[in-house]
Amino acid sequence: MIQALLFDVFGTVVDWRSGVAREVETFFAGSGRKVDAWAFADSWRAKYQPSMEEIRSGRRGYVVLDVLHRENLDATLAEFDLADTVDDEGRARLNRAWEKLPPWPDAVPGLEALRSRYLLAPCSNGSIAMMARLARNVGLPWDAIVGADIGRGYKPQREVYSASAAALGLAPAEVMMVAAHNFDLAAARKAGLKAAFVSRPDEYGDGPVGTPDLEPSDDWEAVVPDFMALARTLGAAG
Amino acid sequence: MIQALLFDVFGTVVDWRSGVAREVETFFAGSGRKVDAWAFADSWRAKYQPSMEEIRSGRRGYVVLDVLHRENLDATLAEFDLADTVDDEGRARLNRAWEKLPPWPDAVPGLEALRSRYLLAPCSNGSIAMMARLARNVGLPWDAIVGADIGRGYKPQREVYSASAAALGLAPAEVMMVAAHNFDLAAARKAGLKAAFVSRPDEYGDGPVGTPDLEPSDDWEAVVPDFMALARTLGAAG
Repeated sequence: MIQALLFDVFGTVVDWRSGVAREVETFFAGSGRKVDAWAFADSWRAKYQPSMEEIRSGRRGYVVLDVLHRENLDATLAEFDLADTVDDEGRARLNRAWEKLPPWPDAVPGLEALRSRYLLAPCSNGSIAMMARLARNVGLPWDAIVGADIGRGYKPQREVYSASAAALGLAPAEVMMVAAHNFDLAAARKAGLKAAFVSRPDEYGDGPVGTPDLEPSDDWEAVVPDFMALARTLGAAG
Repeated sequence: MIQALLFDVFGTVVDWRSGVAREVETFFAGSGRKVDAWAFADSWRAKYQPSMEEIRSGRRGYVVLDVLHRENLDATLAEFDLADTVDDEGRARLNRAWEKLPPWPDAVPGLEALRSRYLLAPCSNGSIAMMARLARNVGLPWDAIVGADIGRGYKPQREVYSASAAALGLAPAEVMMVAAHNFDLAAARKAGLKAAFVSRPDEYGDGPVGTPDLEPSDDWEAVVPDFMALARTLGAAG
């Protein structure tokens, strides 16, 4: 029997691409520099998986995603020939773009409905610090924050899922991972969790960073178009 | 400048003694066994510090407080000659008394006021699992849960405070510890945090487990009678 739902966040709960692009746009508005904010967001995000891979591989010890984001921001500014225009304070401010990402329209009402029956927590590669501020800024009703900081690693490393379930005092089979990415669900299932696939066709827009998983790759326990449908499927709707 | 407030929970936010006594009372009602629920609560709690000391001393590796509470419950049931009357499922249920403790009357409105300006998190010896369920059950508006599980140890071990501040992405001096216990504040200050003393004269009632700290032992940054006063002191009241 499922007691808690764990959520992937970037792409599954929130729209990182338009959120980061909007923050970049706002940041450089009036600076006199013409910046393609969508291209900047895509370039920043393209460095996400490679930077975590350094840690997954053991070549680097665990550091929080805030640190990786900042390093990747520095590299992106250099690529866009903007390194000389943004000081340390500005970079710290811009790095907080990841704490202000807009939820998909169904996300908050869906989480509210699901929370009537389940314990809810993000199981993201974002840090506790980042997830707490994001939740405050955009109103995500988490009961706790687990994920990368709890497992001291990055998804899809097994320890992130198993340590996250354990931190909630639950066996893996009592927990369902919710994500728009099949690889995330496959890793969660390997760790013993249940899996729910939510389709997010607009995550990558027309950018080059990735292509959305439009279909489930396996027989996940739930396959739904959005969080309201997940609430109905799991008997938590109203 | 303070960005986040960390809270001791047992005694500072919630009234553990009357909460546990009430759960014990309810549990044994109709069982045919006469149980002094207040004495049971006190005896259970008296084993709290010694059980954590095994871990602080290094004689035992870190285990969550839920496990210590359960071992202490087993011992308390034996002391009260009740060991044969409560099965494993009943013990698990009774152990959840710690997830249903009533907040002091000012606690929830005080936290709501403080949250308008600060990031709020428990820094308790309770686990993430215990704190998440307690928050849901009695309505504590935390932004994140830090504390023992994050520091993999028990207060007043320094690492619990410093790892908790770090998990929120903050320097120790940007964080204020709020507690009704001077020893907790002294340890937090040693780790570089600010300290606020809240007086909770009724924590131990007329039981033998402890005596309340009626006065601050040091020049804490704030000394207040309750959380509403703390909100006023910290400029977070309405």
